Amino acid sequence: MIILGIDPGYAIVGFGVLNKEGSSVTMVDNGVITTDKTDSFPKRLSIIAEKVKELIIKYKPQAVAVEELFFHTNQKTAITVAQARGVLIYIAESLGVELYEYTPLQVKQALTGYGRADKKQMQQMVKTFLKLKECPKPDDAADALAVALTHARTSPLLLRTTRLN
Amino acid sequence: MIILGIDPGYAIVGFGVLNKEGSSVTMVDNGVITTDKTDSFPKRLSIIAEKVKELIIKYKPQAVAVEELFFHTNQKTAITVAQARGVLIYIAESLGVELYEYTPLQVKQALTGYGRADKKQMQQMVKTFLKLKECPKPDDAADALAVALTHARTSPLLLRTTRLN
Repeated sequence: MIILGIDPGYAIVGFGVLNKEGSSVTMVDNGVITTDKTDSFPKRLSIIAEKVKELIIKYKPQAVAVEELFFHTNQKTAITVAQARGVLIYIAESLGVELYEYTPLQVKQALTGYGRADKKQMQQMVKTFLKLKECPKPDDAADALAVALTHARTSPLLLRTTRLN
Repeated sequence: MIILGIDPGYAIVGFGVLNKEGSSVTMVDNGVITTDKTDSFPKRLSIIAEKVKELIIKYKPQAVAVEELFFHTNQKTAITVAQARGVLIYIAESLGVELYEYTPLQVKQALTGYGRADKKQMQQMVKTFLKLKECPKPDDAADALAVALTHARTSPLLLRTTRLN
């Protein structure tokens, strides 16, 4: 099963692609989609949409896993990121890929068994689980791998009702 | 010039279509797109996307006008509406339509010359400007006409920099 994890944003969107076969999970790709602040907001949304579409067409994931938006203290940022997140959810849906969302707590628990793990511990677990020499950079790519890993580790237990709704 | 005004939402999205010729503005269509709460969130985003696409293909607007999101006290609602708003902005952009956004204050000032006009006064002005017997229902459709009217009344003065960015 191919899983595409996405860390939503609008200036930078992280992505991570994993291949899960039985209990083995390997990394296929990771990176970031960036948009230029000199472009209009609609143009930036389009760039994100096109790149996510390319990733889905290229890797044909069976699932897209996205972290639930937590409420930023900066509401303007939260609203802008939410608009970009809506676009990528729409793109995945329009291409027929199942969508799953996980809270930051679920991601931490799935990777470390501990809800208060910090960023460094999380990155260490991404590196360990995927047998990588280094944790992928930037953080957005590592965060996307973390949510993809969360899906890989918890999806056998998932009931249909945990699907994003 | 055809203008499509949209009042963003996810359970209900208002739309209003105006035709502006010189200083004359007439109503072409108005209504709402509704999504069912029994559908998944990605499905609801897709329904909004498809309906907005249909409206743009049907009426071929030269401009889409959308009200800027104000910050709800309910952040969860704000984030959900923002995700739907991102989708409709992406759809308009992908179909090559110029996007403009107006703050609630700008809409009120354009229609009443008064920044503190209430909903009833606004609906009265929509009815008067468009020479309608009744103000369109529900409120979401009237709100969409109000933002379209704002664009119709202010666009001759617009500098490129006021475009949504």
